[in-house]
Amino acid sequence: MVKSGRWILALDVGGTNMSGALFPDSGGDPVALSTRKTPGSEGPAGVVEAGAELLDEVRRQGAEKGVDVKRIVGVGIGVPGTVEPGRGIVSLAPNLGWKGVPIRDLFQDRVGLPVVVDNDANCAALGEWWVGAGRGSRLMIAATLGTGIGGGIVKEGRVVRGVAGAAGEIGHMTIEMDGHPCQCGNHGCLEAYASGTGIARRAREALRGGAESTMTGMVETEEEITAAVVTRAAQEGDPVGLRILQETARYLGAGLAGLVNALNPDRIVLAGGVVKAGSLLLDPVREEVRRRAFPASAEACVIAAARDPELAGVRGAALTFRREVLEGRR
Amino acid sequence: MVKSGRWILALDVGGTNMSGALFPDSGGDPVALSTRKTPGSEGPAGVVEAGAELLDEVRRQGAEKGVDVKRIVGVGIGVPGTVEPGRGIVSLAPNLGWKGVPIRDLFQDRVGLPVVVDNDANCAALGEWWVGAGRGSRLMIAATLGTGIGGGIVKEGRVVRGVAGAAGEIGHMTIEMDGHPCQCGNHGCLEAYASGTGIARRAREALRGGAESTMTGMVETEEEITAAVVTRAAQEGDPVGLRILQETARYLGAGLAGLVNALNPDRIVLAGGVVKAGSLLLDPVREEVRRRAFPASAEACVIAAARDPELAGVRGAALTFRREVLEGRR
Repeated sequence: MVKSGRWILALDVGGTNMSGALFPDSGGDPVALSTRKTPGSEGPAGVVEAGAELLDEVRRQGAEKGVDVKRIVGVGIGVPGTVEPGRGIVSLAPNLGWKGVPIRDLFQDRVGLPVVVDNDANCAALGEWWVGAGRGSRLMIAATLGTGIGGGIVKEGRVVRGVAGAAGEIGHMTIEMDGHPCQCGNHGCLEAYASGTGIARRAREALRGGAESTMTGMVETEEEITAAVVTRAAQEGDPVGLRILQETARYLGAGLAGLVNALNPDRIVLAGGVVKAGSLLLDPVREEVRRRAFPASAEACVIAAARDPELAGVRGAALTFRREVLEGRR
Repeated sequence: MVKSGRWILALDVGGTNMSGALFPDSGGDPVALSTRKTPGSEGPAGVVEAGAELLDEVRRQGAEKGVDVKRIVGVGIGVPGTVEPGRGIVSLAPNLGWKGVPIRDLFQDRVGLPVVVDNDANCAALGEWWVGAGRGSRLMIAATLGTGIGGGIVKEGRVVRGVAGAAGEIGHMTIEMDGHPCQCGNHGCLEAYASGTGIARRAREALRGGAESTMTGMVETEEEITAAVVTRAAQEGDPVGLRILQETARYLGAGLAGLVNALNPDRIVLAGGVVKAGSLLLDPVREEVRRRAFPASAEACVIAAARDPELAGVRGAALTFRREVLEGRR
């Protein structure tokens, strides 16, 4: 391991968990990595304190492994919300209940290092483009399938931000005009069907409708049905679990085919917990995109699972810092 | 009028009609303009001959107005299909039944001038960005609502082409998972509902369902119901016409809101015959986008009708020629 050179701390703040890591500024694997719960109920101050403690821990781990901590040059942070470009202010983070939070300055004051903040899905997309399933892509779309569905678009290695820094919200494309209500206030969004939450809801509905499934033996209460339970059941051959995943792929395929037609990308990278279903999900997604998109665009686009679903977010946050602070560009 | 300087011929080949024009290379208004039917049934050779004759006519008109025809430097052409970037080959044009037609070379041989070919909706988008409702936009999406729905995305004045030149097909985003069949072979596409064809179909269905409407007095047979008839009825206060336009706006708003969330543009420009409905269509489209898209993205985006629906395509074709041949870039 190269221990000379510069180092970048990275933090990926999720709605449920946060990850911290220490990366060489050249990319590659982190020398230290740690996770903890996001204390979302404690507000921005609580999250900043917890995040800073996590970064301290990661820094200590790095020192133990021989990293010269004086060569840590700053922090890249991904947050689950819309970030005002260049100012590090979270304009809206629904899962955390944040609105107009100057998260860059809060972290900078606490950590004493330069901080750069971006949307978590943008970070994950950039991380997979840098060292993952998006490598070498000219136009890549990443979809993060977790509690919600986040997205990031990377063109020639740059995150596509749109005019107000809000681009990439691909989970909120309408796929059913008068469909199920979505967290965002709209209805019929892709996220309402194909996110972890949407998968769990559809599975509960199927069981409530009387479908026989091994899932009923896997949990005690209906609330315990999650996308992970559905995936496990499907992997064990449960017909309900298999059908729910198949339907998920159909929804995802419809949403992604729309993007394939509109943008003609060469790569779609799927990340997030839901992707643990592997080819049970990926294969029918590919089929549905082929069925729905224009042949020239469908053929040009490889659909792959993220190489490092757990690391993509922190890695991309580190690269975002490197670019903005060390290289002075976005 | 400036009659010195260089001149560019432009041709916009539609599925039904074609327009030819002669532009000063600085943009502005054409010095000559003419239209005729597209003889689609005569195949590529027939269309090339008819297009070349139209260009000859436009050139003559220009000469009569004092243009030095020796200063005409080339031809920009827009075609309703996917064009291989840089080669001028139409890979697929469903409305013309073309597949793999080397249209640039065919025109070049016939006209004896350098020719550049691009997708017609890309041309229209660029034309409106150059001298129209897209002026000054950083990220603009143009939707051409005609027989089908075409689209073009212009970022910082450049057409976003995707990796295979096929980007911009925004009419083929799924808005109803199991919706109405679309020309493209898919079902539930935006085009199947909000194109002129979709509008006419929905109006016929409403009348067949027994709805009372002034439309029945405006036509002799059901086939004569077109989007233009629906618009005229709506403008005269017919409740069925008004409802059909309102629904059209809802479909369009849902599709466009998805793009607003995914790309965060500052401008959406609506072109094509359907836009003649004016504020009867535009106002509810704006409302639906505001209702469905994220506030930050919805607020950042102005939705406007094209300034020159009839000229945008030829003007953009002329600009495409200027850039590729005169300036050596795309």
